Amino acid sequence: MLERTMVKIEGGVCAAKGFQANGLNCGLNPDKNKNDLGLVLSDVLCDTAAVYTSNKVKGAPITVTKANLEKSGKKSKAVIVNSKNANTCNADGVEKAQKMCQLTASELNAKGYEVKAEEVIVASTGVIGQILPIEPIADSMQALVAGLSYDGNQRAANAIMTTDTVMKEYAVSFELDGKTCVVGGMAKGSGMIHPNMATTLNFVTTDLAIDAELLQKALSEIVKVTYNCLSVDGDTSTNDMLTVMANGLAGNPKIDSENEDYEVFKTALYEVLMNLTKMLAKDGEGATKLLECSCAGAPDLDTAITVAKSVICSPLFKCAMFGEDANWGRILCAIGYADAEFDIDKVDVALASANGTIEVCVDGAGVAFSEEEAKVVLGADEIYILVNLKQGDVSAKAWGCDLTYDYVKINGDYRS
Amino acid sequence: MLERTMVKIEGGVCAAKGFQANGLNCGLNPDKNKNDLGLVLSDVLCDTAAVYTSNKVKGAPITVTKANLEKSGKKSKAVIVNSKNANTCNADGVEKAQKMCQLTASELNAKGYEVKAEEVIVASTGVIGQILPIEPIADSMQALVAGLSYDGNQRAANAIMTTDTVMKEYAVSFELDGKTCVVGGMAKGSGMIHPNMATTLNFVTTDLAIDAELLQKALSEIVKVTYNCLSVDGDTSTNDMLTVMANGLAGNPKIDSENEDYEVFKTALYEVLMNLTKMLAKDGEGATKLLECSCAGAPDLDTAITVAKSVICSPLFKCAMFGEDANWGRILCAIGYADAEFDIDKVDVALASANGTIEVCVDGAGVAFSEEEAKVVLGADEIYILVNLKQGDVSAKAWGCDLTYDYVKINGDYRS
Repeated sequence: MLERTMVKIEGGVCAAKGFQANGLNCGLNPDKNKNDLGLVLSDVLCDTAAVYTSNKVKGAPITVTKANLEKSGKKSKAVIVNSKNANTCNADGVEKAQKMCQLTASELNAKGYEVKAEEVIVASTGVIGQILPIEPIADSMQALVAGLSYDGNQRAANAIMTTDTVMKEYAVSFELDGKTCVVGGMAKGSGMIHPNMATTLNFVTTDLAIDAELLQKALSEIVKVTYNCLSVDGDTSTNDMLTVMANGLAGNPKIDSENEDYEVFKTALYEVLMNLTKMLAKDGEGATKLLECSCAGAPDLDTAITVAKSVICSPLFKCAMFGEDANWGRILCAIGYADAEFDIDKVDVALASANGTIEVCVDGAGVAFSEEEAKVVLGADEIYILVNLKQGDVSAKAWGCDLTYDYVKINGDYRS
Repeated sequence: MLERTMVKIEGGVCAAKGFQANGLNCGLNPDKNKNDLGLVLSDVLCDTAAVYTSNKVKGAPITVTKANLEKSGKKSKAVIVNSKNANTCNADGVEKAQKMCQLTASELNAKGYEVKAEEVIVASTGVIGQILPIEPIADSMQALVAGLSYDGNQRAANAIMTTDTVMKEYAVSFELDGKTCVVGGMAKGSGMIHPNMATTLNFVTTDLAIDAELLQKALSEIVKVTYNCLSVDGDTSTNDMLTVMANGLAGNPKIDSENEDYEVFKTALYEVLMNLTKMLAKDGEGATKLLECSCAGAPDLDTAITVAKSVICSPLFKCAMFGEDANWGRILCAIGYADAEFDIDKVDVALASANGTIEVCVDGAGVAFSEEEAKVVLGADEIYILVNLKQGDVSAKAWGCDLTYDYVKINGDYRS
């Protein structure tokens, strides 16, 4: 990736040129103030890349989106997405997901947009194993299309939220060959979040022109060090999906090799996905704190990622952070059971936040520290766990959140 | 394993002939009513088998016990164990653990028992990274040895408890070649429990005569389908240890091949370890329910174990059980991300308890069931999750517990 000035901008999925969006309540969610159906539309056909859940149980929308992108030659023009019902583990799931694409394409065509059903990306999130009623979606399609606008991003971002407490959007603007390009996206996710492909629902749009194969390559690389380094609870969802649509309207020379422009695009994509990842971690179900573990001094990337993730995933450590207790033995314990090869006796660990830094472990053994200072450091709402293996020069980060009473409360009775 | 009548008996580690035990408060634990130092002694030298944590961070007692058993040729005579301090990640840890063995052997010799330091198994459990004060242990050794008795098992079992709410002992008696043999044990464990070698502190004694190699082989096989199928929180401890001491006082012909007697012994060992495993699961930190997932119809044992464990480890499912919510989609989700190869579309799932059974999923898709009936079934304190992959004839079980407010509370501030 290349260093390049990335300017954070507003607009989410509508930040890039030529993307409209809308969202509304179609009735899947009894709360009429909460959108449950979202639509994103590009003015022109997009090169498209996607990553999906690695769960064997795949939501029907995953199956249909994969088939659509195959049929269309990795081209897409629209996204249709609902919350409140995952359309997963239902006998008629694929049929319903296909119907959502057909309804979307049909209404868009009626309004003068040329969209084929296989150019529609479909996604669903919510309860698993309940039949998805198609009527509310069909009945609202006209209003959904009629309300599309180039600043409708928040209505769409609202539609994909479930137990999310905040809307998640991020976009950056950057220069490429004299052209201003934008990468922007929206994400939903709060529970059933664990590193293994995509994680949660995520839709990224860009007006950059790039070859679909390279788009997929960049996405897979960046997902490995962002979304796949995120864990809220260790549960890999059945419906995880991340798509990137590139419509080329920025007017840059189309990226068709791994040149400097490609590296700049990767930097932009990293910026967007990394920030969405942090938003997802911070809004983890019941979370009061964002946890970011960086593992430096690793012999290779996989080791760095594995160690950082292991710390972030430890329930005992997550509880200790909720209690603002500098119980660093649990960090060492989690590093110790990470599935990677390294010498534990070299490891240093420090805890940091906006309130300061405390060293807690040097060369694998504890060092004296002030519990009072530790309390101050851990009182912040973003905690950084700094691990240095001191046996290489590669580093990686992983993101998560604390484990709290509210996580248990939210998940003790999710369906009601 | 061979079917054979196993009679459940009292006595824990003292149930087998020739084993004495004691426990007392030496001052590591400020609560004078809670023992923190335990001792087990065999009248004669024992063939010994052991399994240890797979965590890279290993408690100093693990290192010392391993070295001792190597030096003694897998012979042991005593166990010395403390709670409240794990003696792990300390620069002087090995020295302190060796000192515990020396103090034990020295005092036992002074009282006329012939014990070498390398015949002592040493174990510690408690907070990681705090220097273990040796003085309280040294000062109490005389009283500890003086109080040894053939019915002192509960004093020792009390000494190894940490956040445990109940004492964990189990013993069975059975016939072998006309001789009555006994296998008994004690365990401690409530948090930092996850399948990966031994898990928690566990001491098993038997008066059966068996070759040390075969003892180790039987232990490794049985641990795979009992302790290693147990998870409370996904955290693999640094100090896990399970030892089996066989002193041969039952007078059976020494088992030196994988004959029928060996199979009977394995049945007895399974009975003891499986029951201790269930006790550990039921007493998981904050737990209100024991969860037992059985996976039948698997093509092989590893697949059955992996699937059963995956369900038991899912935080979302664990929360749903706490809430008595039949959210079976989470079971399917956890089966789906299990790291094994099988066809998800054949899977059946049912939930059962003493209050009844409800089928929730057939051939990978949901079936209608009464939420009212489900509430009744899930109201029990032992819940059975019955998974049938329908693609083979192998089965396995895994054990865990629900995830509750109290787990978070206990672990939010464990050290204070």
